Amino acid sequence: MSAPWITYRPELKVMDCTIRDGGLVNSHAFDDTVVRAVYDTCVDAGIDYMEIGYKGSKKLFAPGKFGDFKFCDEDHMRRIVGDNDSDLKLAAMADAEKTDYHEDILPFDQSVLDVIRVATYVHQLPVAVDMIKDAADKGYEVTCNLMAISIVQESEIDQALEVLADTPASTVVVVDSFGSLYGEQVARLVQKYLAAIEGTGKEVGIHAHNNQQLAFANTIEAIVQGANRIDATVAGMGRGAGNCPMELLLGFLRNPAYRVRPILQLLQDHFVELQNELKWGALVPYNITGQLNQHPRSAIAMVEGDEQHDYVEFYDKLVADL
Amino acid sequence: MSAPWITYRPELKVMDCTIRDGGLVNSHAFDDTVVRAVYDTCVDAGIDYMEIGYKGSKKLFAPGKFGDFKFCDEDHMRRIVGDNDSDLKLAAMADAEKTDYHEDILPFDQSVLDVIRVATYVHQLPVAVDMIKDAADKGYEVTCNLMAISIVQESEIDQALEVLADTPASTVVVVDSFGSLYGEQVARLVQKYLAAIEGTGKEVGIHAHNNQQLAFANTIEAIVQGANRIDATVAGMGRGAGNCPMELLLGFLRNPAYRVRPILQLLQDHFVELQNELKWGALVPYNITGQLNQHPRSAIAMVEGDEQHDYVEFYDKLVADL
Repeated sequence: MSAPWITYRPELKVMDCTIRDGGLVNSHAFDDTVVRAVYDTCVDAGIDYMEIGYKGSKKLFAPGKFGDFKFCDEDHMRRIVGDNDSDLKLAAMADAEKTDYHEDILPFDQSVLDVIRVATYVHQLPVAVDMIKDAADKGYEVTCNLMAISIVQESEIDQALEVLADTPASTVVVVDSFGSLYGEQVARLVQKYLAAIEGTGKEVGIHAHNNQQLAFANTIEAIVQGANRIDATVAGMGRGAGNCPMELLLGFLRNPAYRVRPILQLLQDHFVELQNELKWGALVPYNITGQLNQHPRSAIAMVEGDEQHDYVEFYDKLVADL
Repeated sequence: MSAPWITYRPELKVMDCTIRDGGLVNSHAFDDTVVRAVYDTCVDAGIDYMEIGYKGSKKLFAPGKFGDFKFCDEDHMRRIVGDNDSDLKLAAMADAEKTDYHEDILPFDQSVLDVIRVATYVHQLPVAVDMIKDAADKGYEVTCNLMAISIVQESEIDQALEVLADTPASTVVVVDSFGSLYGEQVARLVQKYLAAIEGTGKEVGIHAHNNQQLAFANTIEAIVQGANRIDATVAGMGRGAGNCPMELLLGFLRNPAYRVRPILQLLQDHFVELQNELKWGALVPYNITGQLNQHPRSAIAMVEGDEQHDYVEFYDKLVADL
């Protein structure tokens, strides 16, 4: 195709992760108004999936310290979406070793959720596989986010993919947890994932972080390579540097099923204010941890502290500790 | 090469355009302290070229309304750089039809400048060619920025490149004036430019804008394709959405000649404050004009006005006027 960017791929599906990943910025303490606005916007914009939060363990996370969408109890979600009488599918993330999945993930017919997204580090894979089977047995569509792969040996990624190819997970997501990957690296990973799931009917997804202002570009690269399950958030809201911005993604996709105008309305109604109150985006400390391929926790601490602009001291400390 | 991103290309040269392109944000009304800090930082960081401003016509631009670096008279520049006793080469931009080049561009041996960067729209090419010859005859290295190519027919670009290949310009720069290009488009353009200059000894450059958060990614793509003259600005400062951030570029390049630490120092010493005073970056109105492949002037007016967050009205107006 001589100009592939002026057409679209109907099998590609978009997931909005604003409340789930964005909730890592404010401990999921969103007003219901905002969660409802995101939900309504996803419906209006023709988005395929909305990840509404985590299924966090109440033994690990004290409910008083987090908003409801850290837990996604049925009554939390139904307060916003009712019985979700729409084409939008609802997802919740279940972190390996941070979810009481046997109890907290209800049978499919008792839940308003459609999809369970199991997130796992490579070393937690046996737990994750059990979670995937549990959720699939309960009747859900299940997907798997293999996290922090930029610090995992390729042979281990290969082995993890071999294991995941045999599970009922419908999608395996390339996750650039540290926002450290360049486009060429994303391209190779997507190719690797596609090769590993070939013939299984599964799809490959992409979840990018914006530490180096590359989240949108890396998402495009993943799409070009064949990823068909795409994560984005409104205003790029997400932990640290945030994610691929939905308003950019929908403009790129050119699929007439998607409409960017409702996203713009949501941005001006709610996200201008959120951006004044909370901090996320490709700030210099996130540039630094991204380029050093490190977890953003040191940068998050810095950005929230009094010395948020002492970039040189921060850089020197990280480099000295390498 | 199996992992090209962990090595570097010594023939690649970096130009800092902070004062020139960033000056479009504040009418070049920089404190000398800032210009000097940028100059010193370029030297410390091992950057190859610094574009210190424009050679603007004083008949078109009233000196009282602009800072000195709109004009780059010798005494303006020497006030900052003395005789430029460093390895850093100094450049100024000369816009076609906005420069009194016969008078204002001095013979090379009377100037502290090393490079004249002629910027031109395709329809101004005959003037630009005369400017290129004039500056080359005077003894300068000359380069050419062919602007706004995202709204120019490919056949016209081809013809312009044919003409430029016959000039003494040492570099032809791919310029994404509207920040509308995706990586695949940048790749094709760089390939086109490389093919057009093949055998002439010229180089291809890249000057990206960040309307869609793609300036850094598109710069990387251009480098991967063979562009060897790379523009960037500190904090991405530049008109509208700004440019490829120098702090990200140097981290990517991995050439030990470049040092990112002085850039971080400059960011914390001066650019935190500039970013509080002035507005640039990939704001939503720039996302919109970028995706619609339009000049950013409407978005600049909006961002500077009282209704800077009325995204939907802005979008509706642009779409209605298509």
